[in-house]
Amino acid sequence: MEIISENRAFGGTQGVYSHSSHSTRCDMTFGLFLPEEAQMGPVPVIWYLSGLTCTHENAMVKAGAQQWAAEQGIALVFPDTSPRGETVADDPAYDLGKGAGFYVNATQAPWTPHYNMWDYITEDLPSFLQEDFPLDLSRQSIMGHSMGGHGALTMAMSLPGRFRSVSAFAPISNPTASEWGRKQLTAYLGDDESTWAAHDATLLMQDKGFDGPMLVDTGTNDQFIDLLCPEALAAAANARRQEATLRLQKGYDHSYFFVSTFMEEHIAFHAEALYAD
Amino acid sequence: MEIISENRAFGGTQGVYSHSSHSTRCDMTFGLFLPEEAQMGPVPVIWYLSGLTCTHENAMVKAGAQQWAAEQGIALVFPDTSPRGETVADDPAYDLGKGAGFYVNATQAPWTPHYNMWDYITEDLPSFLQEDFPLDLSRQSIMGHSMGGHGALTMAMSLPGRFRSVSAFAPISNPTASEWGRKQLTAYLGDDESTWAAHDATLLMQDKGFDGPMLVDTGTNDQFIDLLCPEALAAAANARRQEATLRLQKGYDHSYFFVSTFMEEHIAFHAEALYAD
Repeated sequence: MEIISENRAFGGTQGVYSHSSHSTRCDMTFGLFLPEEAQMGPVPVIWYLSGLTCTHENAMVKAGAQQWAAEQGIALVFPDTSPRGETVADDPAYDLGKGAGFYVNATQAPWTPHYNMWDYITEDLPSFLQEDFPLDLSRQSIMGHSMGGHGALTMAMSLPGRFRSVSAFAPISNPTASEWGRKQLTAYLGDDESTWAAHDATLLMQDKGFDGPMLVDTGTNDQFIDLLCPEALAAAANARRQEATLRLQKGYDHSYFFVSTFMEEHIAFHAEALYAD
Repeated sequence: MEIISENRAFGGTQGVYSHSSHSTRCDMTFGLFLPEEAQMGPVPVIWYLSGLTCTHENAMVKAGAQQWAAEQGIALVFPDTSPRGETVADDPAYDLGKGAGFYVNATQAPWTPHYNMWDYITEDLPSFLQEDFPLDLSRQSIMGHSMGGHGALTMAMSLPGRFRSVSAFAPISNPTASEWGRKQLTAYLGDDESTWAAHDATLLMQDKGFDGPMLVDTGTNDQFIDLLCPEALAAAANARRQEATLRLQKGYDHSYFFVSTFMEEHIAFHAEALYAD
């Protein structure tokens, strides 16, 4: 592990670290905020998965999450959104390749063998974190923005018992039915759409739902709202009687000004679940 | 005026605008956060002056100030740190030229006639804002970071009655005695050091002080602390019996993680002064 930076923030430490990942077969960089309480012993953790074009850094500097996590004594993990490096395949489009791993394990060339962001987030990085940092992985929650909201929702539903709560800002909610999804799922997983269902929050909600509370915010002025399909997830969650709060926030768009506005409520929502027993 | 962007944030609007400045003789871009209360009538305003290398954008996306300004019903102005454009002189160093206007009116070539950031911040931009936005300029305060802390302190002391309170994060406090200062003052104002005194917070504190409360935070692990000279300002403020809170914050550095950690307290400090009558 390499320490890239450590800055004191809100009584704790905002670190940036890189490590060699066996899932993505390259060096990966992530941000980790540890609250002051981590000096005394393991603390609960919230994962924040970022959207298209982001690195580990965007939410770490723009979402304003650390202050609320510090208040609650909770750690925050900010992973990168794709494998990186000169040997890693890329695409000129902003929404494919680097910065756009879509939280799946690619089965198609040229995306194999590096594009395994599902395994990286759900297996590799947790193992690494548990060894090197004072985190209580029996108390985890997950959240994300846009493509990262897609990742958070699909991981939460696919790994029952792993996360106590899930939330999302403007998530890509029905990627098998949207241009933000069909393009990436075709590229990474191929033309057989049966392989896509495990990576669609709406289809997962129809199939199994989530064993805990869910919070989703989307702005009514989100410039990408037609690509996000919040109505599909809402319909599926209502049909299932999923414990959920699904909100449309008047006038807000897709930016981090939207995310930061509602961050306090999202962290408080997760804290309630993480400290429930 | 050109509207570059407007995003809903914390119930208000984070806008970015550009306008033609007669002080700097170029187009200038600034950020303006208006809280929800601005829809009903003029609101008080806090100026945030940024540091070396920054544009209007850094603090606007990283300082986390909007949430506290929204709570208090206060507007925030985020000006740029220098003139911009192809015809504007520059220097290869990060600490001179573009991004490093040092909040003075340059008298030396090649910095004339564009580098007039003092006039831009104290005359040109206020006039422009008053015409186009619902701001109550009888209730203004000013703050800044590093070079911007220098700007805030020197303007507050030089314009008695203008600002009700002043605060700074890691300000350049004694530039006539520091490499962060002597270089820029020589370049912009020339070798006659008598012209520099009006742009040194410590000398201004010795000479006149500030007619209101002052709050200054500096991190004990600030990597630039020897260039900032907080001890010089502290000595001058104590000698004058200036109403002031001067704090050294253990373990914090020069970054926006430091700034955002203490932003809530700085905004509350200004709000108390702005709503005092």
